[in-house]
Amino acid sequence: MTLTADPSLEAHLEETRDARLETYLDFLRIPSISADPAYAEDCRRAAGWLADRLREAGMENVEVAETGGHPIVYADWLHAEGAPTVVAYGHYDVQPVDPIEEWMSAPFEPLVVGERVLARGASDDKSNVTILLQAAAALLATRGRLPVNLRFIFEGEEESSSVHLEPWLVANRDRLAGDVAIVSDVGFFEGNVPALTVGLRGMMYAQIDVSGPFQDLHSGGYGGTVENPLNALCTIVAALKGPDGRIRVPGFYDEVVSLSAEEREALAALPFDEEAYRASIGVPALIGETGQTTLERKVARPTLDLNGIWGGYQGPGGKTIIPARAHAKVSCRLVADQDPARIFERFRAYVLEIAPPGVQVDVQDLGGGFPTLLPLDHPMLRAAARAMEATFGQPPLFIREGGSIPFVATFEQTLGLPTVLMGFVPPDGNFHAPNEWMDLGNFEAGIRAMVRYWDELASPGE
Amino acid sequence: MTLTADPSLEAHLEETRDARLETYLDFLRIPSISADPAYAEDCRRAAGWLADRLREAGMENVEVAETGGHPIVYADWLHAEGAPTVVAYGHYDVQPVDPIEEWMSAPFEPLVVGERVLARGASDDKSNVTILLQAAAALLATRGRLPVNLRFIFEGEEESSSVHLEPWLVANRDRLAGDVAIVSDVGFFEGNVPALTVGLRGMMYAQIDVSGPFQDLHSGGYGGTVENPLNALCTIVAALKGPDGRIRVPGFYDEVVSLSAEEREALAALPFDEEAYRASIGVPALIGETGQTTLERKVARPTLDLNGIWGGYQGPGGKTIIPARAHAKVSCRLVADQDPARIFERFRAYVLEIAPPGVQVDVQDLGGGFPTLLPLDHPMLRAAARAMEATFGQPPLFIREGGSIPFVATFEQTLGLPTVLMGFVPPDGNFHAPNEWMDLGNFEAGIRAMVRYWDELASPGE
Repeated sequence: MTLTADPSLEAHLEETRDARLETYLDFLRIPSISADPAYAEDCRRAAGWLADRLREAGMENVEVAETGGHPIVYADWLHAEGAPTVVAYGHYDVQPVDPIEEWMSAPFEPLVVGERVLARGASDDKSNVTILLQAAAALLATRGRLPVNLRFIFEGEEESSSVHLEPWLVANRDRLAGDVAIVSDVGFFEGNVPALTVGLRGMMYAQIDVSGPFQDLHSGGYGGTVENPLNALCTIVAALKGPDGRIRVPGFYDEVVSLSAEEREALAALPFDEEAYRASIGVPALIGETGQTTLERKVARPTLDLNGIWGGYQGPGGKTIIPARAHAKVSCRLVADQDPARIFERFRAYVLEIAPPGVQVDVQDLGGGFPTLLPLDHPMLRAAARAMEATFGQPPLFIREGGSIPFVATFEQTLGLPTVLMGFVPPDGNFHAPNEWMDLGNFEAGIRAMVRYWDELASPGE
Repeated sequence: MTLTADPSLEAHLEETRDARLETYLDFLRIPSISADPAYAEDCRRAAGWLADRLREAGMENVEVAETGGHPIVYADWLHAEGAPTVVAYGHYDVQPVDPIEEWMSAPFEPLVVGERVLARGASDDKSNVTILLQAAAALLATRGRLPVNLRFIFEGEEESSSVHLEPWLVANRDRLAGDVAIVSDVGFFEGNVPALTVGLRGMMYAQIDVSGPFQDLHSGGYGGTVENPLNALCTIVAALKGPDGRIRVPGFYDEVVSLSAEEREALAALPFDEEAYRASIGVPALIGETGQTTLERKVARPTLDLNGIWGGYQGPGGKTIIPARAHAKVSCRLVADQDPARIFERFRAYVLEIAPPGVQVDVQDLGGGFPTLLPLDHPMLRAAARAMEATFGQPPLFIREGGSIPFVATFEQTLGLPTVLMGFVPPDGNFHAPNEWMDLGNFEAGIRAMVRYWDELASPGE
């Protein structure tokens, strides 16, 4: 970690180091498990605790906003006239702790071992929330002001599907104006290499329902005379992808932004051990679209996967029926600039076109989300990269994630904010698993990187 | 019905008509539901009741044989020196009665309305058992002897999978020697046209298990890099049959005995209303192997049907996983001369050959049964046909059934007996359903047809 060029801020951070760690540990002691109603009061307690810390730090308009679920904690500081306005997001809720017997220590009694803090939420996402809070607090304590205008949005339902976040963002659109969003619910690349996430995949989720006879038929008495809905479903699914791993839905790739030569080079340069990855999954071979590397397929190419399939008899032994109904859940991960609604319509049309005769086929839309991709030359991203490089002594990797964070598209599309995904958790931090941990080096450096980022946004050094 | 040429037998049957009907109704009053343990004592009571009637009729060596389940009732009469020995099969157990509220009268309080007897088991199979019993009784009462040697085997577990029948047949092979078996658990063709069943389909039953990663994977983080076991299973299943409805397993059709031109003509001549059949099933169109009529596909061609498929998420909404495992149950109806074990081996080899890379595929044998087919010129069948024609005034239809009766192959293969499937129930008798019924005309005529058959076997009239 390279210290900032602000001696009084560094002195303050040094002086308050133990107290700041204690604050972080206090935060970790609150079992704010959002998915389990038994912890609803703890979630509310975490929101109140966070609001108190924001007030202590000097943030203004602190509010524990009701959403219908766990509250959203809002705060702002808007006195940096002429400077950009940053909307920073994190979440104070955590995952459940099962399997509890695999934890080395109690999940809500944080254990500090050397540079590691073990606790549920230590990384995901109370570390990033605390970094945002302590960066603002240190600036306000030492400079009496922030270099940028700042709005914090700390959610309490990220681990239980963020159901109330988007309606709240839409309802508060007018008072959430800004120039850039920081979604701080991400981290570093393999080997704890500093990284900025520039792309997330979107999603189309559909269900295919195939109906045949009125009711299950005896396979002896009727076999050979009717199309079997299960066989028909398999015929449809098998036709969705070719042996080259390409999705056969006409027009599926029309809006896909292909990787540039530079992006492919950058991906190829990432420290990615393919054999270790394969062995960790336990599959005989890695498989996918031809002409694309594993990492390209993992983060920058669209996919089509069955998530479930069912119909007929599933018990032991045999039952001799032609089942009346068959069902499959199918989802596609999408990449920029694919539109989930348009992809669904093309998918539906193709499924109906290839459906065999003798059965009725329906396709339902189960929802979706837009992919996001920030151009590598976006000034808000360049500023973040300079802050990271200055802090960590090396330029950050620009990475894409294969997963989806649907509300990132909401920040971009509803609030009109370019969104920088910037966080500091180690990639092997056991998020959602026993023995979740955070690296205190990343934690302290993260505060410096965030301060630098805000300074960079106010006075771009490029 | 045309009466037999035996005046004293006809006089006896006429005199005993009411008493014989009462005996049949008494049989129907015993709720011998084999699948429900609550009726175990009733099954035993039915066996004992039947043994008493066989003794009264003059049958010998009457035995209620223990099997480990519901007993088998055995009886014989073996004094027709020089004449063939007939092994006649029926079953005294019946199906459960649900849905009870749809019955017009109590299932075990037989109701006689005109020529119909309504009761559970009225047709399947207590009518055929009573016909066999009363034919033997009438002959012994009037002639003091039977034209053939006769063994009766009345099973009590046909409606609960006949689990103990085959072991009992094998264990008693030496004392069950004979020349022909009559399996009397069948009936007439559509429109109550007299029929003899000459073919039954056999079965191969398999399970395909596809394994991918150690555990379910997040479809965002891993999608695009691994083969999805559900997609792989669909790819395999889709390749099992062609768009022409032909099964693609190499060698699958090698032993299939094709229908002769005469057999195709005979099938085409059967009174079969294709549109009524389609509408009764509720499918938009009848589908199957090209170049074969619906009736040919229904009874004389092999099939391949999925009976069940499952893997991954089956609940409401979406779950974004690549499931670790996928499974399908697949069965083939087989026709003469396909061997279930050989077909399974070919099926297994083909599935493994077409399995996509990146997953592990296993194929389990869940059991099977041989198809059966009696040549139309078999003398034992010709004799039955003459008996039917003489009784009903028209030649019987020779029909094949799409379903399987596995123990028919046991009669043929283990006991070495050509097996004639001969019974008298109306095709729309609501077997296994509410308001099961028997036609008393068929019942009385059935006794005459059986007497004629035995006479024909003793002195072939052809």
